[in-house]
Formats: sequence, C-alpha cells, structure tokens
Amino acid sequence: MLFVKKFGGTSVGTTERINAVADRVLKTVRAGHACAVVVSAMGHTTDELVRLAEAISSQPNRREMDALLATGEQVTTALLAMALHERGVVAESFTGWQAGIKTEATHGSARIEEIETAPLRALLDRGGVPVIAGFQGIAGTAITTLGRGGSDTTAVSVAAALRADYCEIYTDVTGVYTADPRRVRSARKLEHLRYDEMLELANLGSQVLHPRAVETAKRHGIRLVVRSSFDETEGTVVGDMLMEGARVVTGVACEKEVARIALVGMPKSGKQLADVFGALASEHVNVDVIVQSIVRQGEVDVSFTVAESELTHALAICSSLAEKTRHHSIVQERGLSKISIVGAGMISNPGVAARMFEALERAGVDVLMVSTSEIKVSCVIAQDYLDAAMRAVHDAFHLGEEGVHAHS
Amino acid sequence: MLFVKKFGGTSVGTTERINAVADRVLKTVRAGHACAVVVSAMGHTTDELVRLAEAISSQPNRREMDALLATGEQVTTALLAMALHERGVVAESFTGWQAGIKTEATHGSARIEEIETAPLRALLDRGGVPVIAGFQGIAGTAITTLGRGGSDTTAVSVAAALRADYCEIYTDVTGVYTADPRRVRSARKLEHLRYDEMLELANLGSQVLHPRAVETAKRHGIRLVVRSSFDETEGTVVGDMLMEGARVVTGVACEKEVARIALVGMPKSGKQLADVFGALASEHVNVDVIVQSIVRQGEVDVSFTVAESELTHALAICSSLAEKTRHHSIVQERGLSKISIVGAGMISNPGVAARMFEALERAGVDVLMVSTSEIKVSCVIAQDYLDAAMRAVHDAFHLGEEGVHAHS
Repeated sequence: MLFVKKFGGTSVGTTERINAVADRVLKTVRAGHACAVVVSAMGHTTDELVRLAEAISSQPNRREMDALLATGEQVTTALLAMALHERGVVAESFTGWQAGIKTEATHGSARIEEIETAPLRALLDRGGVPVIAGFQGIAGTAITTLGRGGSDTTAVSVAAALRADYCEIYTDVTGVYTADPRRVRSARKLEHLRYDEMLELANLGSQVLHPRAVETAKRHGIRLVVRSSFDETEGTVVGDMLMEGARVVTGVACEKEVARIALVGMPKSGKQLADVFGALASEHVNVDVIVQSIVRQGEVDVSFTVAESELTHALAICSSLAEKTRHHSIVQERGLSKISIVGAGMISNPGVAARMFEALERAGVDVLMVSTSEIKVSCVIAQDYLDAAMRAVHDAFHLGEEGVHAHS
Repeated sequence: MLFVKKFGGTSVGTTERINAVADRVLKTVRAGHACAVVVSAMGHTTDELVRLAEAISSQPNRREMDALLATGEQVTTALLAMALHERGVVAESFTGWQAGIKTEATHGSARIEEIETAPLRALLDRGGVPVIAGFQGIAGTAITTLGRGGSDTTAVSVAAALRADYCEIYTDVTGVYTADPRRVRSARKLEHLRYDEMLELANLGSQVLHPRAVETAKRHGIRLVVRSSFDETEGTVVGDMLMEGARVVTGVACEKEVARIALVGMPKSGKQLADVFGALASEHVNVDVIVQSIVRQGEVDVSFTVAESELTHALAICSSLAEKTRHHSIVQERGLSKISIVGAGMISNPGVAARMFEALERAGVDVLMVSTSEIKVSCVIAQDYLDAAMRAVHDAFHLGEEGVHAHS
C-alpha cells in the first residue's frame, strides 16, 4: 500500500520529535509499505520568519513573503530526510518546486493546479521515501505558498496525484470527536465519518483538518486518517466508502468569539443585500450566519455574524454604506458563540433541529440566530452558555454512547 | 554602470543591518547605476542549521545538508528584497536555482559551471535589483552549496556572467591592508593591488577575500572592490588594469597555529614524497610549506606544515606509512606561525627575500622553514615572535609610508 503521511508543526517541533517521526516512517517502510511524507515548518519557525519580515516592512511584498516562509518547511524536509538516512531508509527532501507542485500565480494563498509526479514516482520506484515541504509550490519560477491549511492540502493533493491508499494526517489529537473533549467530558472518538460531515465540522471550528484539505480529499476520493503523532492510537477515518447507514448526528462543534451585526429598518429594495455583503466580501470580511427578517411596512432587518476580531472593520464598512442601505440603525453584539450539530443522516430525518432547540431550551440557553444546511444545524448563543449548551446537545443525541446514536 | 554588491553574514546580521544595506543599494540606484546584490545567511544562521543537523545525525547526508543550509541565504534575499520594496526600489529575490546558477553535481563544495543569466537580465532590463542567494546553486534538480568562500564566489561569477563593471565585496573591514592592523599599528590600507597579490594574501590568511573568488575574478578580469558595509570609506580595488608599475612588496600576511612534521632519515627513493603527500591529500589534510633536505648518505629528511588542528590526523597518517617510507623517526612541533610578504614586483627584484631574512634576524626571530613563489616569500617562525616579526618586516619594506614602498 502507498501511504502519504503529513506531520504538522508540533509533530516536528524539535529534533527529538523529528527522530520520532522518522521512527514512525521506518515502521511503515519495514511493514513493506511505500510511503511519502509531507511536513510543516518546525514549531514556531513560521511566526519567527513573519516577525523578521514585519521588522522590515509593515506590508511585506507578497512574493518575498512566500520566498521567506517557504524556507521553514525546507528545513524540516532536510532534517527528516537526514533522520531517515540515519535509520538506513532511502529518502530525499523535496521543496514545492522539486516535487513538481504547480500552483496559481498568486502569493500567500495559491491553489494547487497540478502535481508533476515524475520526480516523486522515480524515488518511490527505487523504494525511497520522498519528504515533501508542505504549504508551498511554484508558479512559473516564483515560489508560492498555499495559505492556511496549506500543509494538509499539500498532503491530500500529493496523495491524489500518487493515487495513494491513505492520507494520514498526524496531529496532536487522537482523532475526530463527537464534541471537543475539553468541553464535553463524555465526548467519544469517531471511528469514521463522511467527507461532508468532516467538512461541516472543519468549517465549524473543530480545527483538526482544514476544509480545503477535506474538499480536495472528497473530490479525489482520498481516504483521510486523522491520528496522533504522539501515540499509536488508531485514528479516525474520513471517507465515503464506508458500508453503513448515515448517522443522524455525528458530532457537535462550536465556534467562539462570534459577534453579530444587525442593520435595522432598511427599505426593502432587493439590492441592499448585494451591496452589504458585496462590500464586506471585497474587504475580505468573512460573514457566517445571515438572517433576514420578513418584510414589514416595506422594511427589513438584516443581521449576520462575523468573528469578533473583524467586528470593528465590518462596522466601519456598514457605516460607510449608509447612503445606499438607508438603515435606521446598526446594532452590534459581542460575546457570542455558535454551536452546531453535524450529521449526514439529518437530511432524511425531520425533527433533528427541533430536538436541538428543545435540548437548548431545557438547558436555559437562548437561541439568537439559526442557520441550517442539509447536514447541519447551527445556533448562535451567548458565549457564557456554550459549555452547558454543548453538553446538553451532546446528551440529547446520545453521542457519548457507543453505537446508540448511529441510527437513532 | 553595473555593480554587483556582495554583503556577508555580519553585514546582514540583523533586520537593522538589512535596512542599512537597502539604503546603500538605494544610493547606487539613485545615482543611476544598475545593481545586483548577492547576500550570505544572517549572522549565525548557518551555525544554527548545522547544529540542528548534528542533533539528528553525526554524519548528515550531504544532499540534505545542502538543502538545509541553502535556506539561510534564501531568508536574507527575501528580507532584503522587502526592504528595497519598502524604499520604492523594484527588487526580486533569487535562490541559486532561480538565478540559473548551475554547478557540478557534488554537495558541500560544488563549483559553479554556468550561470543562465536570462532571469537576472530580465529584471535588470526593467530597472530592478536582483537579490541573489550566495553560496548555492543547482545541479539537475538538486540544491548544491559551494562550500567555504561560496558567497564571494557567487558574487564574482554573477559579475562575470553579467559583465558587471565592478564587483564590490562589503565586509567588516575597510579594505586590504599592508598587514593586519591589529598586529601592526603602522599598517596602511592599499588603494589597489593585483589579482596575484590578492590571491597570495587571500591564501596566506588575510581572510578578507576567499582565494576561489579572487581566482574567478582574475580569470574573467572582474574588478573587485573590498570595502566596509559599516561606513562609506573608499575600499581597495583589486585588478590588473591599473596603470602603474608593480610594487615590490604590497603587504605582509600571517597565518597562526601552524604545526610542523618532519620525517627524518628516509631512504631516498623518489617515490616516498608521492606516498606521503598522496596519502595526506586523499585524507583531505591540507599541507602548506614542504621542505626536503639534501640527500646525505642516501637518506633525506622531509618536513612540512599543516594547521595545528590537523596535526594529530596528519601524524596518524604518517605513522601508518612507516612501512613504505622507512623513516627513522617523526618529529613534530606545535606553536608555529607563518609570515609572508607578497608583491607582484618581487619577481624582477632580487634580494627581497634577503631583506626579509635580515629584518627577521635583526628582530631576533629564528626562521625555521622558507618557501617562495614568484610573488611571495614565506617564513615559518615560532608563534611567540609573530607580532615582532610582522612589525620588523613591515618596517623593513616601509609599508606604512604612503607611496614610498611602491617602487622601492
């Protein structure tokens, strides 16, 4: 079998950790499997490089920022390849360009367009282990980086290009849980879940896998395994090839530090929504839940959530649109959170949302906004109630009980 | 005019220093000149990378060592390019491969074979400043490094490939001196000297320029300027196009921590010299001065110097050859130094060596070994007498007096 293994920053944070990663790879090779490895920069390397750049320029040139940051992963690849040599394993380091990872010609958040696998294949055919720098690629002769979640995305793309059997994402948790174990004591590790479920969980702040990586895996049907680099526990498999009925609710996710903005009393014209969210998007403000009230006397209220850190920026944009939107007032609220349930079986199970609202009601949690998709229900609530809400919802769907929730 | 400017590790040791380098480049650009810059890794970056590698492996794989070390210069190029952008100067960073610097397929000490200048030319033609990583190149798709003196060599090779008017080597001294100013107070900075003189001085431990770089400059007729990156003092120009007669003696150089080995009483066979120095060379021991006594009763004594740090290794090699060389004994001596005078005019001025011996004699310094070339005389002496010897020789050739020594 061919494994692509990805190790993140904490997994390669020290030379001791790099040696541990080499031991792990050795085990796979000894078991007779082929293996390619994708690594991130060591620990805080990237932060340190960013600090250097910021000491030089408040708005560092983006091409140069990519050239700078790409060195972080290059260091890890060389060190891990040395560690593998030390164990008698044939291995070679690959930067993005050496691995043939071609991206769009944009800096800081380039998308992978193509991977020319010949150099990687050549080494694999010789029984060697390619050690590939995550997060980076090449556009023409310029070094590019992929932005957030870049190393996960590299790993999945390499796995797709090499038609690997598994793409293993090694991280500091042992898998994907029904809820954050730090918040919900009865949270249980999932053995497997579907791409769409993982995608919703990833988007909803479970922070185990970046949504871009999950999307890429889904598109190419690459089986993902999320597992710990610190112990041998079996991880969680993400893939649609599982022979089972869909679970109604797979897990509970949350997002903290959410703020709400409401534009109150806008004349209903059909154009104001485009004006508001167009302006926010062009200023790179991420808007999450959007709710529009029904029309009353020719006026509507529109409210939406943003990350608290973007509230000031978003408010400024909304104020500047006053002439177009002609709202009566802007109301803002900080200190909110979003709690969500995710499950592929939800689509065919009416009443799931109701069960969630009921559980929140019983726990005394006010629901401020609601947003639903085919496999997800999200509620915006006051942050102070988050832990209580998580536990209540987790219990309501029996997520802590092995098997019970699966077809309930 | 086109300038290639090279800044070493201390000149780019901090972000403040990188900003100062950017100011300097800006000045050249503002004066209407074209400019390409070659940089080393920041301060102790290379040492830190070596430490990381050594924590992983006692004999790190050489290909991976090159991939690792090359990141150091890449960081500096990106930061300097950012600093230039900050000043409104068009600039782009270039790794070795991006700059088209092709080397032999060897790691750790590759020689530059060719520079494909199209990418550099394209930027220069747009009025931009290429910022090139020194010390590195590419062989096939493997990253290579040039070894000691690599960044100087990159700068001179780039200057040759671009047919630059000057290659300026910015360092922490203001130029090339008639002797080390820390040893000889009356030492004077030279306005200019010839390649061969610089080559002998470089080889003799003046440590301002690496001999490889000087050789390359000589081969391509590139005018070198050695100058300080910390002030605006005019530096020293190295080149053969100077319209003047050659100076008899240009400067005095020294090398410390030299050791001597003597193989006493070898049967004269004509083959033992090849045996001894072949074995030392294949074990990478650098042998400097070699002296063979005259033949007496069919036997000769051969003595030679090595760096003190290599004495133990060299002795072991000589002992292992005992069967072949059949010497009576090996004599070793530590705590020696070499003092040398260099000057292109020496070749046509007999009596220069005699004047040096005389000066040393007057100063009470015993000469243990002598070695001469067309433009150099070297004497091995006890290290304790080095400073006195330097002053005596410097005075004897009036090197501290402006102009006087030039045609004496």
